[in-house]
Amino acid sequence: MSTSTYVPGLEGIIGAQTAISMVDGANGRLVYQGYVIADLAQQMSFEEVAYLLWKGQLPTPAELDALSMQLASSRSLTQAATLALDALPTETDPMDVLRSVVSIQGVEHRLSKPTVPLAIHATGSFPTILAMFHRRQLGLPPVKPRPDLGHAANYLYMLNGKESSPELVRALNTYLVLLADHGMNASTFTARVIASTESDLTSCLVGAIGALKGPAHGGAPSAVIEQLEEIATADNAEPWMREARRRKVKFMGFGHRVYRVYDPRAKILKEMCQEMNPKFFDLASKVEEVALKILHEEHPERPQSTNVEFYSAGVLQAIGLPKEFFTPTFAIARVAGWSAHVLEQAANNRIIRPQSEYIGPEPRKPVPLAQRS
Amino acid sequence: MSTSTYVPGLEGIIGAQTAISMVDGANGRLVYQGYVIADLAQQMSFEEVAYLLWKGQLPTPAELDALSMQLASSRSLTQAATLALDALPTETDPMDVLRSVVSIQGVEHRLSKPTVPLAIHATGSFPTILAMFHRRQLGLPPVKPRPDLGHAANYLYMLNGKESSPELVRALNTYLVLLADHGMNASTFTARVIASTESDLTSCLVGAIGALKGPAHGGAPSAVIEQLEEIATADNAEPWMREARRRKVKFMGFGHRVYRVYDPRAKILKEMCQEMNPKFFDLASKVEEVALKILHEEHPERPQSTNVEFYSAGVLQAIGLPKEFFTPTFAIARVAGWSAHVLEQAANNRIIRPQSEYIGPEPRKPVPLAQRS
Repeated sequence: MSTSTYVPGLEGIIGAQTAISMVDGANGRLVYQGYVIADLAQQMSFEEVAYLLWKGQLPTPAELDALSMQLASSRSLTQAATLALDALPTETDPMDVLRSVVSIQGVEHRLSKPTVPLAIHATGSFPTILAMFHRRQLGLPPVKPRPDLGHAANYLYMLNGKESSPELVRALNTYLVLLADHGMNASTFTARVIASTESDLTSCLVGAIGALKGPAHGGAPSAVIEQLEEIATADNAEPWMREARRRKVKFMGFGHRVYRVYDPRAKILKEMCQEMNPKFFDLASKVEEVALKILHEEHPERPQSTNVEFYSAGVLQAIGLPKEFFTPTFAIARVAGWSAHVLEQAANNRIIRPQSEYIGPEPRKPVPLAQRS
Repeated sequence: MSTSTYVPGLEGIIGAQTAISMVDGANGRLVYQGYVIADLAQQMSFEEVAYLLWKGQLPTPAELDALSMQLASSRSLTQAATLALDALPTETDPMDVLRSVVSIQGVEHRLSKPTVPLAIHATGSFPTILAMFHRRQLGLPPVKPRPDLGHAANYLYMLNGKESSPELVRALNTYLVLLADHGMNASTFTARVIASTESDLTSCLVGAIGALKGPAHGGAPSAVIEQLEEIATADNAEPWMREARRRKVKFMGFGHRVYRVYDPRAKILKEMCQEMNPKFFDLASKVEEVALKILHEEHPERPQSTNVEFYSAGVLQAIGLPKEFFTPTFAIARVAGWSAHVLEQAANNRIIRPQSEYIGPEPRKPVPLAQRS
């Protein structure tokens, strides 16, 4: 392979080999360790899927019980993490809270290699961090985790101080399964680059959280809600959106580099959204229709598809999450995939260190400070 | 470019175009924005070089004064950052302290784009975080920053509670200039991947710190000291190292993917080490001689060169830094380069999202939980 061509964004370049997931864009399939997402999303618990991602196979009932216990015992924060969380201003972006408190929760004395128990430990802590912060924002005391509740149910319980209905828990569980991994996205790639230096798991996860925060990656779902709020009614969709395009405003929740047909996650979330959040759905499905029409008019050659963020906004809203917690809840799902990729990278590692192409000035002698003006 | 070939570690793949620095491995040159490192290292302040990396040109005296004032006014921590720093166990790895406290220092309410003032603000805070933590480890009160001191001098002052000699300040300054940037290394690449999602500067820096921590990247200099301590005497170098190779022990401080001739930074640091730390130098130069001999015997085809970590350990030791602070001090230098790369990425961005190659099992139907054993 020649080094002479720079491909912006590394598009089409293979950054890693992985058994963890496959984004089959041509066929609209997402596969986790040999299972198609549609076969997992509504039948498996997040815990089963996390086990699958970490270990490469689905757990037996005994293995699942053991994992559930380990996750439940990872739901409390260290003293330093609790103090840091309580010191942060309540208006802090919850992604910054997560990045900071995960970092503190994972500090270590001597460098440790990434392991499945460390992955479980980190995964168990994410909902606690976010729920505790949300309670603080509301001026309410924190809610102790419930070891008898599953991962999704316990998160909602710690957020709200009461158990959510089985329907909402099941919907959140499906969301977490759908978002748990997705091939070589930017945050997962970040985690693998950090892992490739033989750094620790926490460093990888903290980097990945920072990447997920970006609106070009995971930071978009709350923007979907904001755009829908502005459009307000189905009748207003077409005029608003035509005017928006004149002002070069981007439609939130559309376009994906990989899928050439409908994103299989968006398909499942769309159905859930229709059932759980009909008001959102009526507006959103009209906006989707208009968006795809306008985007097709502008670029008929491009396969325009609705991405996972579009309908997940409606599902997360129906579950009762405030929009600032959409991207952090994405992180609650994705930490399973991130940590699986870190384990895989560490098991067969080579430092990820691409070249750069210098486009600066030719070397010349510096002018001494006193002579510069 | 074909997508069919996976290149482990992205070796030889161009990850970015940059005007910030060029690692000219064939000629053993490192260039910052058109200036050869040898012309900068002993003549420029770290502040001048940071300005160069961020702005693409050397500052005038007035611009340098303004920058120095802005850096000096960025030396205090937020209340949340101070509380978090004081909550961390004193045995915490200083790199984890830096990762965590930089994260908290940089929390924001609404997403902000990377800017030079934000880069200055972050760069100014790194020495404070590390010095405050070191004082805590020693059971000593923190030392207030001195706005009249330069970046290197103030760091030593805050660590030690007294001013260091001009010779030591100058040596630290040279070290900081030499380590401020280095093309597309793993931590810089991490920062750019995070920046490519349109995330904030703090998220990029926190990810980069995590990558630098890895012993395959910046985590090696303290290991150089540990290996020299084990070897103990020049006479023991050859027997110890031959025995070490039989046990597959890696020699710390050797080998680099890019330089084919002597690393220009290592050359300058070697001279400084000889002058400042003759005891270290006598042992280290013997160990270097034996290491290069053995490595050449094993792989005559490989250009084996001493890397920047080898003699920097001797210089940092002479400056009076404890070995746990070698890698964090590397970060104090490199934050200038990281933030320059983030600014450059943000100015002409495309999300960095390579593909992955799926090597997992072919899709099959999952077995229901109750039937698994």
